[in-house]
Amino acid sequence: MDFRDRIHASFDRQVFMRRIGATLDRVEAGEVEISLPFAADLVQHTGVLHAGVVTALVDTACGYAAYTMMAEHEEVLSIEFKMNFLRPASGERFVAVGRVVKAGSTIIATQGDVFAQAGAARDHVAMMVATMIRR
Amino acid sequence: MDFRDRIHASFDRQVFMRRIGATLDRVEAGEVEISLPFAADLVQHTGVLHAGVVTALVDTACGYAAYTMMAEHEEVLSIEFKMNFLRPASGERFVAVGRVVKAGSTIIATQGDVFAQAGAARDHVAMMVATMIRR
Amino acid sequence: MDFRDRIHASFDRQVFMRRIGATLDRVEAGEVEISLPFAADLVQHTGVLHAGVVTALVDTACGYAAYTMMAEHEEVLSIEFKMNFLRPASGERFVAVGRVVKAGSTIIATQGDVFAQAGAARDHVAMMVATMIRR
Amino acid sequence: MDFRDRIHASFDRQVFMRRIGATLDRVEAGEVEISLPFAADLVQHTGVLHAGVVTALVDTACGYAAYTMMAEHEEVLSIEFKMNFLRPASGERFVAVGRVVKAGSTIIATQGDVFAQAGAARDHVAMMVATMIRR
Repeated sequence: MDFRDRIHASFDRQVFMRRIGATLDRVEAGEVEISLPFAADLVQHTGVLHAGVVTALVDTACGYAAYTMMAEHEEVLSIEFKMNFLRPASGERFVAVGRVVKAGSTIIATQGDVFAQAGAARDHVAMMVATMIRR
Repeated sequence: MDFRDRIHASFDRQVFMRRIGATLDRVEAGEVEISLPFAADLVQHTGVLHAGVVTALVDTACGYAAYTMMAEHEEVLSIEFKMNFLRPASGERFVAVGRVVKAGSTIIATQGDVFAQAGAARDHVAMMVATMIRR
Repeated sequence: MDFRDRIHASFDRQVFMRRIGATLDRVEAGEVEISLPFAADLVQHTGVLHAGVVTALVDTACGYAAYTMMAEHEEVLSIEFKMNFLRPASGERFVAVGRVVKAGSTIIATQGDVFAQAGAARDHVAMMVATMIRR
Repeated sequence: MDFRDRIHASFDRQVFMRRIGATLDRVEAGEVEISLPFAADLVQHTGVLHAGVVTALVDTACGYAAYTMMAEHEEVLSIEFKMNFLRPASGERFVAVGRVVKAGSTIIATQGDVFAQAGAARDHVAMMVATMIRR
């Protein structure tokens, strides 16, 4: 099975991603894009998208970016990640892009960004560095 | 208003926390506990709790732990955090504890842990370090 | 005083940087480059450059990149950073590049990379994300 | 060879640690302590211990803490770490303590702290979370 098909099949099993309304928009070797329309039940106390939702989007994008580097029998797991929040996550749509920085034999280092779109504006709201492992 | 009341009022406005079924169980000066029962629609592709949900729980616990150190007119914001995933997040109930390590005049450093409970067993599944800012 | 002059003057007071043989090679608005020739007394037990030295180089580059965004009376301080080690730091010369991702009114988010050079080869050995504060 | 002997032998090959004057003071299963007297040539531009030196101390303590969990033929490597700087690193002596949080079959999660001592006072100046891998 092609890595694109494997990743789409896996994303379909991500109940939480589907439940919040996220879609898998682009899968290339080493780079994956996921997006989410704003929804009123995903906010934190200040009315912007919950940091945990922002994190879930880009962790999933980074994980699948790593997965594009893997053989069919392998599984990808997040060992750890770091998020930096650059601006409040307010907008109509959120786009998370994950990409592979270095694919080693055991460890895959990835980097991701989250953008908030409102009309024609696009703001960089968060960045992630995530370490994935092959299993 | 007492910090306990302020934090309970703020948690009630956290639509996403309520939606996933999280409850604010304990608020003390410098330490906050939040828990969540397992739910089938919060899983990732492997069937365990989504890393983004684990993160949302403990980020919220750390944020409120920092908030217990603040004056009434101040707001707390996550600048950045790091998560380490120690074990798969499988269990019946998930408990996130956030605590203040150092409360400075601008920056508050916090540390958090997530435990998964199943019957009498309790596993340490994740740890967070989060940097909060007073606003 | 121009930010270039301020940064060169500050670097000259960085006794540790001078002691290990690091030089400040390039200062532009939002981007700073520092390099270091390999030296036998900077190694860890495996014979490659000590992770602490790799970190010191790129933390300094990120700090000064943030400093290029500041007024004359401000000081820059690292609140926190994260390093990912991508390859063993072996080579003849190490080049650290720090750049500003987002300069806010209090917090400046930066990103950095370390490259190891040996002859014509240039390897990406580490990456940093660092959060700086104006003081 | 006992893990204590292996770690002392390895520390003796850490040229950089010896050069800055660090000593390996305590090695127990899962916990290692390293200390360093203040020296004028280890400072950054503000006159306090350089963040890279603080990092080197605690990374080494965390790495050896992980190493106490390993078999004789294994090597320990830092994949990544995060530092939080809680106070300026000024003092007469710096003590770094690293400890194992979770030792998995491939990955070992560790946590570390750095304290600055001046007379009878002891301040918590930095904390680390580091991910180590067996090789």
